Amino acid sequence: MKRNYDIDEINSLQSEINHMDPVDLAESFDEMSVKEIMLRFKLLDKDLAADTFAEMDRDKKREIIERFSDEDVEELITELDEDELVDTLQELPANMVRRVMDEFVVGDRRRVINRLLGYPKDSVGSIMTVEFLSAKATSTCEDVLKRVISSDLDADKLEQIWVTDKSLVLLGYVYLADILRSPDSVLEDLLEPLPGSIEATDDQEIVAKIAYRYDLSEIPVTDSEGRLIGIVPVEDAIDVMREEYEEDLSNIHGIQESSDDSYLDRSIFAIAKDRTTWLIICLITATMTGFIIQRYESLLAASVALTAYIPMLMDSGGNAGSQASTTAIRFLYTGDITFADTLNVIWKEARVGLMTGFVLVVVNFIRMTILGPETLAIKLTVSLTLLITVTLSKVIGGMLPLIADKINVDPTVMAGPIITTLVDTFALLVYFEVASHLLNL
Amino acid sequence: MKRNYDIDEINSLQSEINHMDPVDLAESFDEMSVKEIMLRFKLLDKDLAADTFAEMDRDKKREIIERFSDEDVEELITELDEDELVDTLQELPANMVRRVMDEFVVGDRRRVINRLLGYPKDSVGSIMTVEFLSAKATSTCEDVLKRVISSDLDADKLEQIWVTDKSLVLLGYVYLADILRSPDSVLEDLLEPLPGSIEATDDQEIVAKIAYRYDLSEIPVTDSEGRLIGIVPVEDAIDVMREEYEEDLSNIHGIQESSDDSYLDRSIFAIAKDRTTWLIICLITATMTGFIIQRYESLLAASVALTAYIPMLMDSGGNAGSQASTTAIRFLYTGDITFADTLNVIWKEARVGLMTGFVLVVVNFIRMTILGPETLAIKLTVSLTLLITVTLSKVIGGMLPLIADKINVDPTVMAGPIITTLVDTFALLVYFEVASHLLNL
Repeated sequence: MKRNYDIDEINSLQSEINHMDPVDLAESFDEMSVKEIMLRFKLLDKDLAADTFAEMDRDKKREIIERFSDEDVEELITELDEDELVDTLQELPANMVRRVMDEFVVGDRRRVINRLLGYPKDSVGSIMTVEFLSAKATSTCEDVLKRVISSDLDADKLEQIWVTDKSLVLLGYVYLADILRSPDSVLEDLLEPLPGSIEATDDQEIVAKIAYRYDLSEIPVTDSEGRLIGIVPVEDAIDVMREEYEEDLSNIHGIQESSDDSYLDRSIFAIAKDRTTWLIICLITATMTGFIIQRYESLLAASVALTAYIPMLMDSGGNAGSQASTTAIRFLYTGDITFADTLNVIWKEARVGLMTGFVLVVVNFIRMTILGPETLAIKLTVSLTLLITVTLSKVIGGMLPLIADKINVDPTVMAGPIITTLVDTFALLVYFEVASHLLNL
Repeated sequence: MKRNYDIDEINSLQSEINHMDPVDLAESFDEMSVKEIMLRFKLLDKDLAADTFAEMDRDKKREIIERFSDEDVEELITELDEDELVDTLQELPANMVRRVMDEFVVGDRRRVINRLLGYPKDSVGSIMTVEFLSAKATSTCEDVLKRVISSDLDADKLEQIWVTDKSLVLLGYVYLADILRSPDSVLEDLLEPLPGSIEATDDQEIVAKIAYRYDLSEIPVTDSEGRLIGIVPVEDAIDVMREEYEEDLSNIHGIQESSDDSYLDRSIFAIAKDRTTWLIICLITATMTGFIIQRYESLLAASVALTAYIPMLMDSGGNAGSQASTTAIRFLYTGDITFADTLNVIWKEARVGLMTGFVLVVVNFIRMTILGPETLAIKLTVSLTLLITVTLSKVIGGMLPLIADKINVDPTVMAGPIITTLVDTFALLVYFEVASHLLNL
């Protein structure tokens, strides 16, 4: 459906959208036709138009590049910050990337973009910005102020001035406000030291870790010689942290997140595909528990009452194990525990397990006495199994993430299915062994 | 053990610690005696000493306030930023808070601190800083520059100048670099609009959400009339996000995180206490599954082979359900789905469940055919149950977080035990009902 705008409507639309945030604008464009979007892009300030374009989702970006005139696309591409352009290029199909690079990205900018595109996905280099101002430690504040005033960088890139030595090795930074307040100093005198820097080839996860630990508002990125080559603002570190969080949750529950698309827009086929692999793995590992039960079939036939406690025992073990693994994963992240602490963790979890298990045994004994018609032998069997299972599960759950981390596997990937399988298997084996002794079967 | 330092050692120690980051310093002090710490505090620049103190853990802070001389404590307290002081006071026992407030916090500062202490724990007000520079929209850049130069705020609080109207209602902000580059403008001309602001009484969770959505580097906090009363830097938003993340993980796995202490330092009793409640709840809800199995005991006695598939069916249901709930929780957070989408989610998860369930049935049928000596009737019973359980679990898992959110319960709290109980119960009921029909028992 086409609609016509009169001049007043155009004016009020222009004022309205120019006061919106690019994130909100991009979201409102999601539902609009390309023509409606085109009109709005013409009304937007160039800067805001580029920021809005950068926030749009992949499909809309492609549509705009295909359907806008060459001139309009060129204007958009030129206004994008280098890191926004790199993000955009990474979302486009190869032929479109070639077209954009050949026609709209020229000179120095092309060299920079090509270098940034060379960093692996999920590396620090792929998310850093190359827009920053650096100066030698011996520069006077007066000179630096002149450079700030004549700089064409966005103002948010000029809050910290980065300080290097003669060989361009990063030493620290100076706040613009401090430079203003001490015009007669040299940068060296005002230098804020850095607790650490990161390299462009590092995994982007480290950005979130450093930002979290040191409360930095900008994280400098260096090459292997320590020379400053980029910056990651903490706003981007937050995005990394959120991504990582979602990845962890998905790993623990075995969802392969292949896309950032909205849930409601995704096809059920795509969702099912993301989830099936893990369910199949779990189903196949469950063969183990099936085998064990089959092996003890005669025992179960002789005492069918035992079956009623299998779910409770398996659930308690699984829950106890995932508590321990969650704690281990958490403190691995903060660096509070490492692989070197494995024995310590095992010893601690064993005692925690015994303690927790003992409480559960008491509660369960009371529960069985009130509800069940079971014999004392069955009660003792269930109690002893519960104690051993909970303790073993705690130890396994606490230990596995440390081992995973040591062999460079994401601990959250290992946490789910492996712990479940191990714990289920142990729980059943212990149960039936205890039963065959205590019940004399 | 006491040790002596000669003058050279003292000098090199001083230079070394004054180049360290407060976070690393605080960590290294964790293991030191109060005397060693005292020596280092005397050698540290005042600013750095205060920042380091702010980063130390609760017990060390208490020890220092108790054992340092009144003079030294006063110096420390005076150098702390308001938000650091509030954080510290919240960690001290009441008598110590009174002492610090009465003896070392005076005048205006006392009024500010008392106001900040009045905000509830986990509110935005409890984490915001009150150190910022604001100016009227009609101010000239020249005037503002003068105010910046004569301001005694830390330079990192002067990167953005906050702009208000005549009644002090927040309009937006201006970057210091833009003010420098346009000395003849008034602030109004350079104004960067705000996508939204938050109130001091809001839950601190909103800080992380806003920072994530809008990539802000400072988040302004207003009172209910829209007047600026504080700022949360995004560095702090990252801490909030991390806290929230850990809380979610802990909720899902039923750990009550009562403390930020290190894992290795915590007593096993405290750890066991955090974890036991949830395990007891799960144990008691497992009574349900026990009842169901007992009710169908004759069925199981007649066909013991059925028992071998109980763990697989329960695990598959549980896993399928937690996948759906993880996805729902994730998209609830980003606002992509809300309670209004419940029917949509149910319909979508039902179809995803049927699709996933069908694949699992095929894999399982092959598995049973290769491995098992089971009759066709048992294979069909297991297959049909698997399909129904996976589908039901997806629907329950997708639906429950939406309901939880609607009734203002944290969806992650509801996700764990309730989904497990419901899914386990359904899986067994379906299994035995299908079995009694198909096996004619």
